[in-house]
Amino acid sequence: MLASGTLVPVGSGFPASALSPPRSQPTTAYDERGKLLTDADLTSLSAGEASGLMRSGHMTAQRYVLSLLSRINQRDGRIQAWVFLDAEGAMSQAKALDGLAPEQRGPLHGVPVGIKDIIAVKGMPTRYGSTIHDHDDPAPADAAIVSILRSAGAIILGKTATTEFAATSRGGSCRNPRDLSRTPGGSSSGSAAAVADGHVPIAVGTQTGGSMIRPGSFTGTFALKPTWGALSTEGVGRFSISCDTLGFYTRNMDDLSLLSEIVRISPGSRNIPPPLRPSSCRVAFIRSPMWPKAGPGTQGAWEQAERLLEQAGATVVHVELPKVFNRCYDWRETIVSSEARVAFLPRYIQAKEKLHPSIRKYVESREHPSSEALCEAYDCASQLRNQWDKIAREFDFVLTPSVPDEAPVGLEWTGSSAFCTLWTILHAPALNVPGLVGESGLPVGLTVTGPRSADRRILEAGRFVGKLFGDLQPAL
Amino acid sequence: MLASGTLVPVGSGFPASALSPPRSQPTTAYDERGKLLTDADLTSLSAGEASGLMRSGHMTAQRYVLSLLSRINQRDGRIQAWVFLDAEGAMSQAKALDGLAPEQRGPLHGVPVGIKDIIAVKGMPTRYGSTIHDHDDPAPADAAIVSILRSAGAIILGKTATTEFAATSRGGSCRNPRDLSRTPGGSSSGSAAAVADGHVPIAVGTQTGGSMIRPGSFTGTFALKPTWGALSTEGVGRFSISCDTLGFYTRNMDDLSLLSEIVRISPGSRNIPPPLRPSSCRVAFIRSPMWPKAGPGTQGAWEQAERLLEQAGATVVHVELPKVFNRCYDWRETIVSSEARVAFLPRYIQAKEKLHPSIRKYVESREHPSSEALCEAYDCASQLRNQWDKIAREFDFVLTPSVPDEAPVGLEWTGSSAFCTLWTILHAPALNVPGLVGESGLPVGLTVTGPRSADRRILEAGRFVGKLFGDLQPAL
Repeated sequence: MLASGTLVPVGSGFPASALSPPRSQPTTAYDERGKLLTDADLTSLSAGEASGLMRSGHMTAQRYVLSLLSRINQRDGRIQAWVFLDAEGAMSQAKALDGLAPEQRGPLHGVPVGIKDIIAVKGMPTRYGSTIHDHDDPAPADAAIVSILRSAGAIILGKTATTEFAATSRGGSCRNPRDLSRTPGGSSSGSAAAVADGHVPIAVGTQTGGSMIRPGSFTGTFALKPTWGALSTEGVGRFSISCDTLGFYTRNMDDLSLLSEIVRISPGSRNIPPPLRPSSCRVAFIRSPMWPKAGPGTQGAWEQAERLLEQAGATVVHVELPKVFNRCYDWRETIVSSEARVAFLPRYIQAKEKLHPSIRKYVESREHPSSEALCEAYDCASQLRNQWDKIAREFDFVLTPSVPDEAPVGLEWTGSSAFCTLWTILHAPALNVPGLVGESGLPVGLTVTGPRSADRRILEAGRFVGKLFGDLQPAL
Repeated sequence: MLASGTLVPVGSGFPASALSPPRSQPTTAYDERGKLLTDADLTSLSAGEASGLMRSGHMTAQRYVLSLLSRINQRDGRIQAWVFLDAEGAMSQAKALDGLAPEQRGPLHGVPVGIKDIIAVKGMPTRYGSTIHDHDDPAPADAAIVSILRSAGAIILGKTATTEFAATSRGGSCRNPRDLSRTPGGSSSGSAAAVADGHVPIAVGTQTGGSMIRPGSFTGTFALKPTWGALSTEGVGRFSISCDTLGFYTRNMDDLSLLSEIVRISPGSRNIPPPLRPSSCRVAFIRSPMWPKAGPGTQGAWEQAERLLEQAGATVVHVELPKVFNRCYDWRETIVSSEARVAFLPRYIQAKEKLHPSIRKYVESREHPSSEALCEAYDCASQLRNQWDKIAREFDFVLTPSVPDEAPVGLEWTGSSAFCTLWTILHAPALNVPGLVGESGLPVGLTVTGPRSADRRILEAGRFVGKLFGDLQPAL
């Protein structure tokens, strides 16, 4: 384990030793055809591409890490995606990985990853976007998801900014790389911003309401929130046990597919759906009960998506959910409030003055929601999940808005999760697909969803939809 | 935080300094009437009694901790309830607590507690009954439940023996204090044994199948598994997210009631049930579909319980559950297997050779159960919870067997959880009430249960039933 002396908190700068290429390693990187790759090339590689080049010896992990650290060093003063960086540790991990024989190199060999700072990483502190844990020692072990990524060869570069305990919509200092005057969304603010800005090809976040999809839409990244329960949340800060879900940010679908294989989302051959046939697929367009909140950006993206899908030969069916789904919002609120009351009780007792009023309120509302209301919400939400699966299975996939519009101006408020919460409480997989833009030219994503456990199908659908939407310009 | 040098692993003995009473503190303890209390008196106090004496200045926390450490020192060589003890840390916590003004003293002021070793305690290692975490550093922060107990004035004495990741029925070296040739049950083996043997008045365990109730029955302790979700499992090793539930062992009902108040199980005045009237209450006796597994000990206890309740004026109604409840066992198996596959994937990738074959099997069964079967199990179990609540609400409380019989001979196998799993998957509160014995004179508990969130009612019922059953002789 890393001694605390090797931890390099952001703000203290990087040790010069980490940023000067080590003498014994090649300082150049080449693509598969022998073309020299610049730092700019390296920061735009996908995880799969980078790992392939490192596995085949075209690039060392040390070279790659240095290029990303250099990018972060140039950019993160303004973006503030990182709350903790372990530059020396990353270089030493890279060196060890460079020493592995080709056959020992994993599918994420040498790929630096950012981890939302409510998730434990061995040897790094966990601060949860709160001052309560300011003096805790580093974590003794990796959270489940971190352990899997590390076993696949990933380098854990550091911790990314989160709103307080991933449970408030009060923004921090992290900015949207696509417009520094705007929020990147929350609560997985730093993970989305770090990926959008080319600091890392992959980052891990969480969603309890809209904390993966919303920052994905605002920053123009692919964001996957898998089916609830597909990934272990052991080692992750708790907010609402029935809604907390881990997820990934990437800049492309290939990396999401690669990650899904590695972490075994929807394992088993029985879950491989028949191939999606774009020219004959049936797509449900679900505006959802939240549609009145859609601004011009989302309205425009919605119409454009319909045109693009129909041009590609897909059949678009506008589906209105049965009225009972309107009640899901109240049930979700009851479940999240009740579970948050339990989750935050210890920190409330310990240091309530350090908690945001919205978190304090969960604990202080001892009477409401009642336990009877909670049981009713559990049972009704469960029945609706079953009903949702049946509706969604009638289609190849479902498209629905991600957010009301482009990222709001200002850092105070991380934006509305109105369009995301339904899929979270339904435990459905949800994937933000970027590519379209709003009135200011900023990203407006749309969400691909489907029945529970249809993660592979929605990844395939995301690939199809992503191609139709086209690529966004890189951030700034 | 404690430096690692102050940690005293079991087996290395206690530092003499911890076992000699400190000079500046009174070495005597008195009860409320001024009677001198012996070491034997101190080890049989309830948490509430001990804390009361310490709050009122009749005894120091240091005196109390020393008497318990001395008991452990005498006994634990044979029992092996503890896998880690922090004698010095406990004494320094006790000293700090002794320095508090009376009005700062909490409801568990000075009460030493044992924590199952799958639960994080700040400054102590977490080994999970496995060799995988042998070299991890101490935890940087308390698990949620530990934080609450500590805030109430509890002294965290150490970590208690668990089966591997609380997920196997292979026993370790921990013995049943009531018969050293027998298992104390699992997986919360050490927590139950430590309470039964007078090492601590309170210990924390967990249940995913029968891991609280079974050791409670075998060791003759009160064991409360509250409604699922009533306590936060943040900082607790994961086995099955939908079934993992924290719970408490005590030697009496008063301490369980005290703990329930402190940790806010079933908060809110709306959850206070009308007082139970023993002479007119209606009690459902549910043998459950597992009744054919009941041996002579449980059969005898069952008949005796019926006689005792009827003598007290209660109306006993024998209730047979609708046939659909038989399917709950399969649904539970599907849910636990699927969730365990997700939970153990990281450790499987990391060190599968160190995992018990039954844990490896969860991860290796990639095809089975299918995700379709899992969704069906989730939805059906949820419907049954609702149906169960309706059935149980027709009665003041429900009585059902805890285990097939007395603790089995041998340490290899921790016993059958057949009678416990139904209430776990139904998320119902369950309380093992000791007092009756089997053919060898060893404890056979019965379980008080009820609808979800009726924790306060089952505590009240447990008090009534416990009085009827009478006290067991102290262990050995």
